[in-house]
Parts: sequence; structure tokens; C-alpha cells
Amino acid sequence: MRVGFIGLGVMGKPMAKNLVRGGHEVSVISRSQGPVQELVEAGATRASSISEMTAASEVVVTMLPGPVELRQVALGEGGIVANGWPGMVFVDMSTVDPDLVVEIGARCRANDIHFLDAPVSGGESGAIDGTLSVMAGGSGEALELARPVFDAMASSVRLIGPVGAGQLTKAVNQTILVSSLVAISEGIVLLEKAGVDIDQAFAALMGGMANSRALERKGPQMINSDFRPGFRTELHLKDLGIALAAARRLGAIMPVSALATQLMTAVEARGDAKLDHSAVVEVIRGLSSGG
Amino acid sequence: MRVGFIGLGVMGKPMAKNLVRGGHEVSVISRSQGPVQELVEAGATRASSISEMTAASEVVVTMLPGPVELRQVALGEGGIVANGWPGMVFVDMSTVDPDLVVEIGARCRANDIHFLDAPVSGGESGAIDGTLSVMAGGSGEALELARPVFDAMASSVRLIGPVGAGQLTKAVNQTILVSSLVAISEGIVLLEKAGVDIDQAFAALMGGMANSRALERKGPQMINSDFRPGFRTELHLKDLGIALAAARRLGAIMPVSALATQLMTAVEARGDAKLDHSAVVEVIRGLSSGG
Repeated sequence: MRVGFIGLGVMGKPMAKNLVRGGHEVSVISRSQGPVQELVEAGATRASSISEMTAASEVVVTMLPGPVELRQVALGEGGIVANGWPGMVFVDMSTVDPDLVVEIGARCRANDIHFLDAPVSGGESGAIDGTLSVMAGGSGEALELARPVFDAMASSVRLIGPVGAGQLTKAVNQTILVSSLVAISEGIVLLEKAGVDIDQAFAALMGGMANSRALERKGPQMINSDFRPGFRTELHLKDLGIALAAARRLGAIMPVSALATQLMTAVEARGDAKLDHSAVVEVIRGLSSGG
Repeated sequence: MRVGFIGLGVMGKPMAKNLVRGGHEVSVISRSQGPVQELVEAGATRASSISEMTAASEVVVTMLPGPVELRQVALGEGGIVANGWPGMVFVDMSTVDPDLVVEIGARCRANDIHFLDAPVSGGESGAIDGTLSVMAGGSGEALELARPVFDAMASSVRLIGPVGAGQLTKAVNQTILVSSLVAISEGIVLLEKAGVDIDQAFAALMGGMANSRALERKGPQMINSDFRPGFRTELHLKDLGIALAAARRLGAIMPVSALATQLMTAVEARGDAKLDHSAVVEVIRGLSSGG
């Protein structure tokens, strides 16, 4: 398919590369020109404007840092909604507030543009390997139109409900994940204090009811204090802000998620917001050593 | 092997049955005679006393409700240590305080009895299916002697360290698990409040970083409010009391685990301690509806 891709960051760049590898005709736009050049060398073309991109694309994908950038790119003058054509599919894969994608969805509908909110889980490694999990909100028709695009980037694509449902599911993914990371951190510190063989203990935990993807993928990093991202703490905190604001709006009380978010915020307070979110184990180590 | 088994409760009964099925010569003792009769019908023999059992067994396994029962059976007059013989293997698979098993281990060593603390994860279904995860503390020699016994009951057997290391690992299993269950509950309530398709949302979450054994096995029960045990809340709370006491003794700070434990304690406060621990979702539903 002819696909436009806007936002070649940590996630977007490998996602766009997988689109090229998957045989799609990809045009790209991004703030940093280094990643744009990389994509051009991989076989994509550089679009000079959003209007040029929408004219040439059946599907336009955005993967942007936050709501400010998304609002500008989607709804601004010269943006996607202003330039899209009836029948085009606009897929936003950023993690933003559910209310913003509902607003974008309404504006798209008024212009006969299909819209999906389709945030992902799986992190940089999932983006590189093309094994992301897509949580989509929108119509089944839009999803089927965009399916070849998703298939090049993801191993799981689920339609959860109307526009906004993808963001809500992503919010839950992020709150469960932060709680898991902190609980695993607490367990590691207990095992460290007891002086047992942590690798064996982890192997046993992986065989029991405590097993999780977070334990398998982040546990070893935590044990070895290897906090190269991965998924940066500041990005997880951004997502958690969205999740807890949505929870408040909906009247859903999330005490463990909120406490875990506070403990991850302590990573930022230590000046480590650029480290992988597994660095939250350092906060628990600090609490447990008078630090 | 000739195996003695003491404690035919929710977990012990199916574990002992799997020993019989695995071709072991099993003798049993339990407080309730119903399960004893069931085991005899399955091919086990009824031992009239611990001394009769130890004389006839290469390995004696205990699976008891708590420290009071274990202390009595292990260290009491007419108990296992008093009646064991040099070279016999005593395997305690109960979940109790690490300090108690260290004490039992020392008493065994003085009598040349091999001792392993070997608590399990996997719940009643793991006990029935023979797919428990065993977290063992003790010597490698003792583990090898008892391995045929473990193999009949478990799919994963790990030696974590000296006596007590099994209990510490089990403690971590239980604290990670309670935190997971509460975080999943919070996510379910958020999705319920948003009115999205929860089955689809869960399918998406299982494809992402939030996936865990708890999500897969307990999520559907929580969504459907099916709280038949499974693993009773009161038993999880007992284990969490052990875990948090050990954590305090070792100076390991576990804020999320402690909060999650409190929220699970609210299940007990509702009078639902006999329900499956997944019933903690009802506490979050209550908080989120002014209940």
C-alpha cells in the first residue's frame, strides 16, 4: 500500500522501516532529518508536506511524542484532517489522552476520513522485531483497510471498541506494567537482602504464578542494574499521567497503580528519567538501604 | 520410591495422588479421614503414626496449613525429626516462615536427616495437573535424592540456596502475585467504567508487555465475577503475612506489595476470605462505585 508515516522517533523509525521491508510504498516526515535520511536510504521517500503525503497515501500513520504534536499534525492548518481525502485512513499510533483521539475521530468523520486510534505495546524491541501489540479503536471497516499496514509492524492487532478504546486499553497496559515493575523490584530487593541465588529464584518464579512478560524481559536488567532503554522512564510517566487522568474522569480508583507511579516518579526525581523504566528497582534499593 | 505424605488438604490431596500415579509406594496421614480414604482407594496406604511412616519411607513430605501444624509434625514428640533415620529425606512443601524451616533444618542436620524447604506455586490446578513450580532450599544432594518425588508433582524444580531460600522465593512469588491481581483489578474497573469490549481489551493486553500468568488465568474469572477457588484469599493473606514479616526482618521495603495486601485484606473484611483471591476485583469495584 501507499503509506505516509509521520514521526520517526525511537518507536516510529523501526516501525516505518518494517513498512518498507513489508513491501509498502512509504513516504515519511519527521522533525529530525537523520532518521528521515535513514528511511530514504532504506527505500522510503521524503514528503515535503503533509498535503503532499496525504495526496499520495491510502493510509497515513502518526507516531508522535505527545498530544501537542498530535493536535498540530492532525488538526492544525496544513494538517492531516485538512488535507485528507474521503476514504483515506488515518491511524494514530501515539499514546495520548482518549479525549483527544475522540475529538480527532469526530473531525475525521465530518470529512469522511477513516480514523483509528491504535497505540501499541511491545517497546523498542517489539518495534524493531515487528512484534508490537496494537490496541485499536474505530470501525471494523477502517481496521480492515489498514490491516496490511499493521501486519508489517505487529504480531497482534485487536479492535477493542470505538475511537478512544485503543487509548484506554493502552492506559491499562501501562498501569499494570508499572505495578508489575515495582512489585518485581520489591521482590528483587527482598531476595538481595536474603542473599539467595537470584538467578535460580527468578527461574523458579518464571515457572510459577508470578511469571509475567515484565519479569522475563525486565527482571534480568534489574538484577544486573542495566538500565539502557528500552523504554524510557519519562515516556512511561507520560503515559501514566494520561492513564490516571482518564481513570479520575471515569471514576475508576487505582490505588496500587497510583503508588507505583509515584515510585517511578522517584526515578525522575533522582535525575534518571532517560533511563529504562526498570530503573525503578534503584528506588526500592534506596528505600531499603536508608538512601 | 517409598514416600510418606502428611497433610491431604486442597493442595496435598492431589499432590499425593500424583505420587501414587507416578508409581511411588505412598503412605499417608491427614487430620480429615475423608481424603485419607480417597488416597487409600487410589492405592496409598494409611500410616497409623509418624514413626510407622518414617520407618517405611525414604522420603517424607509435609504439606500443612501453617507453622503451628508444621512445628508439631516436624519437631513435636513423636514427630518426624524424633523418628527419622540417618539418610532419610524430609521435604516440607508448606508455606511458612523462613525462620521456622531454618530451625527445622538445623534439627534435621543434627540427626543426619536431609531436609529441604520446598514450597510451591501453581495453585490447586497445578497440584492436580502435576505442573507445580517447586522453589527449594537445602543441599543439592537432598534435592537429587528427592527428585523422583518432585518429578511426579511438578514441572519445574529449582534449588535456590540453603534451607530457607525456598520460602523466601515463595514469599516473593506471593507478593508479586498480589500486586498483579490488584493492578489487573484496577485495569478491569477502568475498562468497565469506559464501557469498552473487555474480552478484546484483554486479548490485546495478553499480546503486550502487561501480559502475565495472573492476567491469563485470573483475568477471565475477575471479568465474570467467578470467584470459586482456586486459591482462597485467606491462604494468600497468610502467605503475605509471612512475606511482609520476613521483609521487615531483612530491611526490605515493599510499599506496593503492602498496599496490595491491604486491599486483599479488604476481601476478608467483606467476609469473603473463602473466595478465590481474584475476588479482590470486588474491592476495587466497591471503591469505584462509592461502595
